[in-house]
Amino acid sequence: MAVYTEITDTELAQFLRQYALGRVLSFKGIAEGVENSNYLLHAEAGFFILTLYEKRVREADLPFFLGLMQHLASRGLNCPQPVGDRAGRLFIPLAGRPAAIVTFLDGLAVGYPEPWHCGAVGEALAKLHLAGKGFALHRSNDLSVAGWRGLASAARGRSDEVAVGLAAVIDGELAFLASNWPQGLPSGVIHADLFPDNVFFLGDALSGLIDFYFACVDAFAYDLAIGLNAWCFEPDGSYNLDKGKAMLAGYQGIRPLTGREVEALPLLSRGSALRFLLTRLVDWLNVPAGALVRPKDPLEYLRKLQFHQSIAVAQQYGLR
Amino acid sequence: MAVYTEITDTELAQFLRQYALGRVLSFKGIAEGVENSNYLLHAEAGFFILTLYEKRVREADLPFFLGLMQHLASRGLNCPQPVGDRAGRLFIPLAGRPAAIVTFLDGLAVGYPEPWHCGAVGEALAKLHLAGKGFALHRSNDLSVAGWRGLASAARGRSDEVAVGLAAVIDGELAFLASNWPQGLPSGVIHADLFPDNVFFLGDALSGLIDFYFACVDAFAYDLAIGLNAWCFEPDGSYNLDKGKAMLAGYQGIRPLTGREVEALPLLSRGSALRFLLTRLVDWLNVPAGALVRPKDPLEYLRKLQFHQSIAVAQQYGLR
Repeated sequence: MAVYTEITDTELAQFLRQYALGRVLSFKGIAEGVENSNYLLHAEAGFFILTLYEKRVREADLPFFLGLMQHLASRGLNCPQPVGDRAGRLFIPLAGRPAAIVTFLDGLAVGYPEPWHCGAVGEALAKLHLAGKGFALHRSNDLSVAGWRGLASAARGRSDEVAVGLAAVIDGELAFLASNWPQGLPSGVIHADLFPDNVFFLGDALSGLIDFYFACVDAFAYDLAIGLNAWCFEPDGSYNLDKGKAMLAGYQGIRPLTGREVEALPLLSRGSALRFLLTRLVDWLNVPAGALVRPKDPLEYLRKLQFHQSIAVAQQYGLR
Repeated sequence: MAVYTEITDTELAQFLRQYALGRVLSFKGIAEGVENSNYLLHAEAGFFILTLYEKRVREADLPFFLGLMQHLASRGLNCPQPVGDRAGRLFIPLAGRPAAIVTFLDGLAVGYPEPWHCGAVGEALAKLHLAGKGFALHRSNDLSVAGWRGLASAARGRSDEVAVGLAAVIDGELAFLASNWPQGLPSGVIHADLFPDNVFFLGDALSGLIDFYFACVDAFAYDLAIGLNAWCFEPDGSYNLDKGKAMLAGYQGIRPLTGREVEALPLLSRGSALRFLLTRLVDWLNVPAGALVRPKDPLEYLRKLQFHQSIAVAQQYGLR
């Protein structure tokens, strides 16, 4: 569930005078995103989303995130488009935090993806990787191997409260991945968080991608590994080969993987599973007592990690 | 902050097939109302609010609430208009609860009301009282004297945790009001909760009223007393005579008060202050430890009650 900072009508009016969107007609907090406060803004110029960046998003990263959305949209990718203020700035302060306005994107997140959804997501991911070419700004992936070390240390003392032996599994995996993490794979802008919440569908077609606040520059195939983890497992923990096949075929139809990427896929999938295991674990261990928000289960990603550890060659994911 | 029940895309699609609103384009939980889950629904037919009634609203009351909104809208009052399903039903089940779709109403709640806002609210309240005439359904005010007794009993043992002596103040006031509560005042449909959250403005005009889920049949002047409490006090607890004057003049410009209503106003204001003191007190004493939602301060209404106890004649509120 989203955080909400209360914005007074006076603050809002003052903020919107800096934009050329006409009079504000309606303004409501919406339950979208977990890192930021989001509001539906109806102005004379139309419907928009106003995002207030809470502490988890660093202001220094906003030119990358918002510039990327602008770059991708200009290359035909359907994603929210940042709306500049009268001076062309993509974010300005509101209620003591940076805030941005983006266009309202129609579409619905899918609760239970079918193979065709996974195929469409694979295609969209490949299109995103191609559309990101030429984007001038750089942002490292702070949730790659070095970042995992920090998260593992933060959780180590209490990991076994969640599952006995978990700390040892994490340490072992981390050591293995640190020694074997592939270097020099084809890289560029990746979404890095393309979960079902962040993909909109309308009818029988994918209609857009949202939430670029983990985007960074990293290996394209790592983004695909995140996609496999996020879309191709069943609620019972099993890998759905049809979904994996569909996602990989969708991706390769737009951007064929190189031989080295194919070879690296099981390792990248292990890394991606460890990344979500660690962030969920740290969130799980840091829930305030009695909080209304129940964090996501870290052990879902322990099971996914164990599945990937059992994979010998990428073809087992359904690669043709 | 609102409660959110998660609605799957499948449940939503099934629900919307019962309406003639076209394809769903977008669906987002919004932070509006505290009793129900509210969602912004964008369908081919336009923007709507979908409300899912959580436990605090009784299903048996929905024909009254929704029928009333329909009745008032048909008489020119600007409020959300319930949208019937293909069979004309105003609410049908969704995710195991009753749900309704109403039209999307533009407008913004005002954070700090000026006297002119209070004048407009007085006018709107009188118009609502007149527009309610002829509405066929009846609902008693379950938060009048008898209801207060129940709330006072529920809180009695722990009231003094909030302020020493509070239980005695409440019991004394309750006994006084029970003996002196006016009978036979002009009555009809009242809103019963017309706080600033529930009134929308656009530019320099009131644009609509929302949240009819406390509406009932009771004395019109009691609704006005609720309005005085909700709109005409400053954050420091003092009564703002200019705001009171504006609200009362706005009301009387549309529906002049009778002599008996004028006479009863101080007592009705005491009753209204006690009503919100009691509901806030019970909420305050029943917050789960560590909850993210901070309940409203009951003592704000203790101070208002004490102010009204000091009023000798209604003219002191600014009645001309």
